[in-house]
Amino acid sequence: MNEDEIIEHLIKPYERSHPALKKGIGDDAAVWLPAGARELWAVTTDMLVEEIDFRREWITPRDLGRKSIAVNLSDLCAMGVKPRFFTVSLGMPASITNRWVREFYDGLSSCGGEHGAVLAGGDLSSADKITISITAFGESENRKVVYRSGGRPGDLLYVTGTLGKSSAGLKLLQRGTLGSRSGPRREALRTHRAPEPRCAVGQWLAQSGNVRCMMDISDGLSSDLPRMCAASGVDAEIFAEKIPVFAESALWGCDPLELALSGGEDYELLFAVARAKRHFLNDLPPEFPSVTHIGNMIEGNGKVWISRTGETRRWLPVDGFDHFSRGGAP
Amino acid sequence: MNEDEIIEHLIKPYERSHPALKKGIGDDAAVWLPAGARELWAVTTDMLVEEIDFRREWITPRDLGRKSIAVNLSDLCAMGVKPRFFTVSLGMPASITNRWVREFYDGLSSCGGEHGAVLAGGDLSSADKITISITAFGESENRKVVYRSGGRPGDLLYVTGTLGKSSAGLKLLQRGTLGSRSGPRREALRTHRAPEPRCAVGQWLAQSGNVRCMMDISDGLSSDLPRMCAASGVDAEIFAEKIPVFAESALWGCDPLELALSGGEDYELLFAVARAKRHFLNDLPPEFPSVTHIGNMIEGNGKVWISRTGETRRWLPVDGFDHFSRGGAP
Repeated sequence: MNEDEIIEHLIKPYERSHPALKKGIGDDAAVWLPAGARELWAVTTDMLVEEIDFRREWITPRDLGRKSIAVNLSDLCAMGVKPRFFTVSLGMPASITNRWVREFYDGLSSCGGEHGAVLAGGDLSSADKITISITAFGESENRKVVYRSGGRPGDLLYVTGTLGKSSAGLKLLQRGTLGSRSGPRREALRTHRAPEPRCAVGQWLAQSGNVRCMMDISDGLSSDLPRMCAASGVDAEIFAEKIPVFAESALWGCDPLELALSGGEDYELLFAVARAKRHFLNDLPPEFPSVTHIGNMIEGNGKVWISRTGETRRWLPVDGFDHFSRGGAP
Repeated sequence: MNEDEIIEHLIKPYERSHPALKKGIGDDAAVWLPAGARELWAVTTDMLVEEIDFRREWITPRDLGRKSIAVNLSDLCAMGVKPRFFTVSLGMPASITNRWVREFYDGLSSCGGEHGAVLAGGDLSSADKITISITAFGESENRKVVYRSGGRPGDLLYVTGTLGKSSAGLKLLQRGTLGSRSGPRREALRTHRAPEPRCAVGQWLAQSGNVRCMMDISDGLSSDLPRMCAASGVDAEIFAEKIPVFAESALWGCDPLELALSGGEDYELLFAVARAKRHFLNDLPPEFPSVTHIGNMIEGNGKVWISRTGETRRWLPVDGFDHFSRGGAP
């Protein structure tokens, strides 16, 4: 079974309802309403394991701290939720130095702080491999939370930023390029090591009231878009030429489109807007990352179709980064 | 450095204040007040790693699930907080079967459900060793939360239940006794494998308004009591003969007092009450575990003294279960 199947078949049966719980398993974060509270609260958790999700020699402790919290904040921001607190459980091999610990927490705390989240607690354990488990909490603004499930046939699909840049950086690391003076290589390495969660744009999109569904792209478009389609009960059709690929990765032999579709860890936002509402995106503040129309939602039940000019559309198989069916990143 | 020193010197400097955060690092759980909410909310997290905190051959997946959530609920209950939700991150070796996953979540869900907490989300990852990171959160009743820091000289110190039973069970496992027909051995094994969080009594104590400080005993009295003393700015004097030891462990060669002082994983409650208020404990409901007066708080700054009839009191060194200074449980 892959990760989605394990969750669906083995874990979801143990989910129980609770009156305060608005959304449990199956979205970027779980959402609940504390009794009497003005806002909805959301919680998300991610585990990073050495040699599965990262290699110690490829990333500084400070960047690892930044990345560890960033991937959690990304989940909150993909619902339009403002980050507030986080807890950190750290499994540490005996080889970890005091300096490593300090720099790791410095990275955690600085990236968290930039997005409004403070360290509230945690746990330490011994472990053979560095193991990081973070849980992040945040609150909505005006109770506007965007789920994966609101898409309708006819909606326009958008992504923020550029896709495939992080995995282009990973390819460099895998080939032994740990640093470079070349602009595109540096950019790819930087994106892989310390992705920026799209908090401001996620909140702006949610506050607009014009976004029907949203999620972050953590495993690649070909893995994540079918999840949003399945949650919304639709199919999607995307246009290969419209996808904002990281074209410079061709310089080191990558296929930019392949990385955009099935490379993981971009942490860009994927969202859908009703066609009639699309003009609000003209007001996107200039400091935000670009937003690109990549396709549309159509009638269906969770599949993604890709088309290229002059070709008939074909079904896009799910083959993004998946811990179980394909093995880990490095 | 041991765990407390790493937290104090390397991690706590990265704590930041937030207006909603009432208690951050350094208690059983962090506490915050969501804007407008009727109640305080508390969050705690614990990581369990195979071969450090448990061995696969010593515990069924169902008991491991129960224990994993129980240790988190224990932290909430030690503040008088009612458990509500939990998230689970699970690092899984390839050898883990679907059946194992199902039974583990069944244990999690059943123990959580017995105490009012439902599974709200999580994450899956590959890992060499089974790695479990749970974050549990809950809400206060009438905003009554009991911290570690309210003790005063002259207060009476109490513990629930029996101390040293879990580590007596661990000793059996370490000697290869995985099961037994003998009552005490069965009880010790059961307590080690599936401890019961003291939720009902913790909430009752907090609601009484008569408890000045409270925590759960997870690393042994000699490790945990100094933490409560340091947080309260007092010393404690405890009486060896008064400690509710698990005397039956002498049957398999253990020193019951030593296990009560420095054996871990009892998950009983430790709390202090002003002398003038102590009579409320006469109303303890009969279905609750026993509560035993073991000593008193005295002027000081975080040390614990132990006395035995006919001897002068001596300082009790910190040597409970500590992941770092003594190595792991098995």
